[in-house]
Amino acid sequence: MPHLNSAQLAAFAAIVAGGSFEAAGRALHVTASAISQRLKALEDTLGQVLVVRGTPCRATAAGQLLLRHALQVSTLEEELRLRLGMHGAEPARPVRLPVAVNADSLDGWFVEAASACCAHGGIALDLRVEDQGHSAALLRDGEVMAAISASPAATQGCSVEYLGSMRYLALAAPAFCNRYFAAGVDAATLAEAPVLVYNAKDRMQWDFMAAHGGSPDEPPAHFVPSTRAFVELAEQGLGWGMIPEHLAQANVRSGALVEIVADRHIDVGLYWHRWQIASTPLATLSEAVRDAARRHLRAPA
Amino acid sequence: MPHLNSAQLAAFAAIVAGGSFEAAGRALHVTASAISQRLKALEDTLGQVLVVRGTPCRATAAGQLLLRHALQVSTLEEELRLRLGMHGAEPARPVRLPVAVNADSLDGWFVEAASACCAHGGIALDLRVEDQGHSAALLRDGEVMAAISASPAATQGCSVEYLGSMRYLALAAPAFCNRYFAAGVDAATLAEAPVLVYNAKDRMQWDFMAAHGGSPDEPPAHFVPSTRAFVELAEQGLGWGMIPEHLAQANVRSGALVEIVADRHIDVGLYWHRWQIASTPLATLSEAVRDAARRHLRAPA
Repeated sequence: MPHLNSAQLAAFAAIVAGGSFEAAGRALHVTASAISQRLKALEDTLGQVLVVRGTPCRATAAGQLLLRHALQVSTLEEELRLRLGMHGAEPARPVRLPVAVNADSLDGWFVEAASACCAHGGIALDLRVEDQGHSAALLRDGEVMAAISASPAATQGCSVEYLGSMRYLALAAPAFCNRYFAAGVDAATLAEAPVLVYNAKDRMQWDFMAAHGGSPDEPPAHFVPSTRAFVELAEQGLGWGMIPEHLAQANVRSGALVEIVADRHIDVGLYWHRWQIASTPLATLSEAVRDAARRHLRAPA
Repeated sequence: MPHLNSAQLAAFAAIVAGGSFEAAGRALHVTASAISQRLKALEDTLGQVLVVRGTPCRATAAGQLLLRHALQVSTLEEELRLRLGMHGAEPARPVRLPVAVNADSLDGWFVEAASACCAHGGIALDLRVEDQGHSAALLRDGEVMAAISASPAATQGCSVEYLGSMRYLALAAPAFCNRYFAAGVDAATLAEAPVLVYNAKDRMQWDFMAAHGGSPDEPPAHFVPSTRAFVELAEQGLGWGMIPEHLAQANVRSGALVEIVADRHIDVGLYWHRWQIASTPLATLSEAVRDAARRHLRAPA
């Protein structure tokens, strides 16, 4: 197969990244119609429909294979330029590193890894917030090159290593505990006490409830998809919820949040998944992630 | 048309909310197979496919109309019970209020509104983080009953009111400014300076660049979809970015972040969209939103 046309590949990748032909045109400084022609030509070359035209536009199964291929090729090309010392010759474009991170890590220890990794320039981080179920698909489809996830299951073509575990505490405001848990934490009180939940996929609160008196009826639940608002609303007494210890340190120390049951936490292991591909920027990020994890996550018991 | 079977409606709504038959089964304490049978019966009654079976499961166009209908009916029923004083008779289930909020509001002034609205119980907030483009579709499809958005365009069946405006400052660490903007902020320096961007839909940084020396080539960009990590990475010198003033107050006061150009902010008007439907909980939330907006957002010039 001859090498694919790089302008066409760029148009295709920009459509998927931006969600529309117009966004792709803006990103590449050409018209939406030029984008459309390039995509059509690429689809003709490969004999496959690559994009589902919709709102937003998405890659088809064939498109996802191509996306992964394109990202791998450009990573290898960057590596080649780096090893050939070519970055001096032309103005260096930073290498884009798309990475999936779970929200509690992104708002916590991962910031240190991101900062260390980018300290020397040459890397443009493209972070996505995803839960572990979805990040495996992103790795497989080539939308990200690495992911932090609670799942130890390796994705094809990727390596996986254990980073440490994040401790979740069941926290609430003291006034909330007095009101709802004066009689203790059991099936009956848990069924009445409002609970804070990150989103529909967040089962952590239910895991905690299951461990404390069977399966209560669904308590009143507030869905708050922001770690910052989650902690603040817990402090204001809207509900109890499972919060990573590093996000609530100050609140626990000041007494604004207390454990609803002393010393009954849930530890969640985190894993670093990355493509098995020679890439200096990816190696730099992996090292920074390992370092930050060593300092901020708990080692296995 | 006879009234629709409420167990079937609940199964349908739970599939869309949870994304799978299994999640719906867990939420309603029945098997996935029972969920599947109820959905099938509802689809037979209406003569329409309601759910696209996929990962995740999604409502079809017909399903979205039904979803909005179901939420409106249950809101009216709640209102009826409230007015009939029926909440005393049976244990009160809190009224679910699904609301779309932009990330910068959720991590800022909206917390106060949420807290005030829920202070008296009876309301379960179901918050979604959405940009303004998407929240119109969520209102139309009945997935949310209200939304905070930067768009003044009313959605059919909804009222819209102006809340005030949020001021965005172009901020960076002092060392970053010394390194990249010592020669001033213009097309040439903006093309070189790394920029922080919330996600692919966030055009705020480009708006600012367009106002300061034409359209530079795309600078190196880090995508950081968390307001908390965004502010921290700006502070650590990874890039400059547009940050709402209320999220950066402490950092600006301490000198950890400075404006890259003095007094050149962007003000974004925010609007409250809500269904025109009689609902005491929705009215309570609207009042709390208005109050908090009055205290924290800027009045029109």
